[in-house]
Amino acid sequence: MSDKERISLAQGEGGLASSQLVESLFLQAFDNEHLYQREDQARLELADFIRQGDRLAFTTDSYVVDPIEFPGGDIGCLAVNGTINDLAVGGAIPRYLSCALILEEGLERALLERIVASMASAAREANVSIVTGDTKVVPRGKADRVFINTAGVGVIPQGVELAARRCEPGDVLIASGYLGDHGAAVLAARGDLALEMDVCSDSRPLHGLVQEMLKVSPDIHAIRDATRGGVATVLNEFAQMSQTGIVLQEGSLPVRPQVRGFCEILGLEPWYLANEGMLVAAVSASAADEVLSSMRAHPYGCDAQVIGQVVAELPGKVQLQSGFGGRRLLEPLTGEQLPRIC
Amino acid sequence: MSDKERISLAQGEGGLASSQLVESLFLQAFDNEHLYQREDQARLELADFIRQGDRLAFTTDSYVVDPIEFPGGDIGCLAVNGTINDLAVGGAIPRYLSCALILEEGLERALLERIVASMASAAREANVSIVTGDTKVVPRGKADRVFINTAGVGVIPQGVELAARRCEPGDVLIASGYLGDHGAAVLAARGDLALEMDVCSDSRPLHGLVQEMLKVSPDIHAIRDATRGGVATVLNEFAQMSQTGIVLQEGSLPVRPQVRGFCEILGLEPWYLANEGMLVAAVSASAADEVLSSMRAHPYGCDAQVIGQVVAELPGKVQLQSGFGGRRLLEPLTGEQLPRIC
Repeated sequence: MSDKERISLAQGEGGLASSQLVESLFLQAFDNEHLYQREDQARLELADFIRQGDRLAFTTDSYVVDPIEFPGGDIGCLAVNGTINDLAVGGAIPRYLSCALILEEGLERALLERIVASMASAAREANVSIVTGDTKVVPRGKADRVFINTAGVGVIPQGVELAARRCEPGDVLIASGYLGDHGAAVLAARGDLALEMDVCSDSRPLHGLVQEMLKVSPDIHAIRDATRGGVATVLNEFAQMSQTGIVLQEGSLPVRPQVRGFCEILGLEPWYLANEGMLVAAVSASAADEVLSSMRAHPYGCDAQVIGQVVAELPGKVQLQSGFGGRRLLEPLTGEQLPRIC
Repeated sequence: MSDKERISLAQGEGGLASSQLVESLFLQAFDNEHLYQREDQARLELADFIRQGDRLAFTTDSYVVDPIEFPGGDIGCLAVNGTINDLAVGGAIPRYLSCALILEEGLERALLERIVASMASAAREANVSIVTGDTKVVPRGKADRVFINTAGVGVIPQGVELAARRCEPGDVLIASGYLGDHGAAVLAARGDLALEMDVCSDSRPLHGLVQEMLKVSPDIHAIRDATRGGVATVLNEFAQMSQTGIVLQEGSLPVRPQVRGFCEILGLEPWYLANEGMLVAAVSASAADEVLSSMRAHPYGCDAQVIGQVVAELPGKVQLQSGFGGRRLLEPLTGEQLPRIC
């Protein structure tokens, strides 16, 4: 393989080689007027934001997933969808992303091109533009191939007030799909486990689904997407922030049979496995049927179902009830079982 | 040293240990209402932006500087000031930053605390809030101690239109301070060079200086801060984007004697060395005196001086004229001489 086909330190130094990388790769793939200006910052009309709502949503995540490519996705679509979802669960309409890459010297150019194409494709699907960016290259052995940071800005429509602290006793908890698909797909894709499994990451953007939900009812109190730490960790956040209790019916938790089997072999529990395109909503009981129907009518919510209730007892705690009458508390994720899952 | 005093993988997994790290370190250091909400995104009133201008500025940079701590600064203040400056040179008033850390397992907690304190202190000086963040931990050997990404948003006041393409023949080029201080300080701080030098990084926020300049004249066409690739690379961007030529007088370029000596020993040219708190402005000739005076009245512009002119000849090129009548073109930075300078 020739030198041209691997990333060099010079491509991260801000000079000619950096500029050529930006022009030959990022400008073409992300293709928008803001990038073509080649200024140090994108300039976005505030009047355009004001038409959609009254608050700017702002968030960031870095992505260090291993392996970089896995069934159902790669670090590129993950970095776009993950940040979009952190905007979406606040009720925001995502608008613009930044893209900052830390590359290890020697990275295959072809791999970088696939990742960038995947980012561009995910951004197009979600109708967001990647308008500003940065690339650093560190010497071999100082990073693991590629790390991506995206920050995102979006607009929260007037009147939308989703917040974990708003969960109330009586609220119904709805999950938009199967638990743990992303975590299982990534863990299975790691060569060291020597396990094969037919499941794909659920990496996908959730803002369309959230907007549909908000259309049918103002009585949605909180939404979070279950990423690191899984549904169990999100629900612990709901319980702690609102000082309510949460009761889950184990039989109602949607887990694919192959993910359940995978978890049994590894001694994991699927409610701690990450998703990257699945949300949990706390909805007032009177609105639950209507919200559930709206979710099932959306392609990314077709497997939605009720998984539990918010209660006044057990403030700050999450209880799992098994079909056999057993009850136990689900703590937030502890320990070190799942590094580099996103 | 006990295990408690080093960063563990669990602290990057989104569960209990992550949450404890956020509460014990970031919330206390960055201390603002947006972080205390503990939602996945900060929510910022658009009405508050609109009062300051008509465009949102949005930018990002990752910081991978080696060493992490160096005379005059560290990766923390760099990550805050660098992103502030990418907003400032567009004429924006910086408002909010994100902070995303990639930590190597085993990082000393005390070092992380110093870095975070340095970020908090830099943010306070610049009157910006760090309102959203993310922490990932990768296994030992998969990153080099700590990488930081910050993204920033700010507001561009109505009527401000700074752009490299706006440079015009006749414009005067003004540098706000000495060339290459940051690059020299960081290179000298690397143990492998075995060189000692009495110079500090110039890491500092430039938005106050830029706002003072904009107050005295609307005839400032472009501003950039000279970071990676130095003044030579910034001026090549001015020349290329505006298709003008740029002529510099070598004798007018402000370089500290110790930085000049350091460059001679290493075979470097100071106009390729990075700054992290020094800008170059292209100003119409009629406004140059007034703008220069306003810069010299500001603590971060007190060493400002005219370094060259924009000309119609040599479109897209930068020419350096020596005191002895010699002329040569300065290309943008090429090669791999200065990795991990920021």
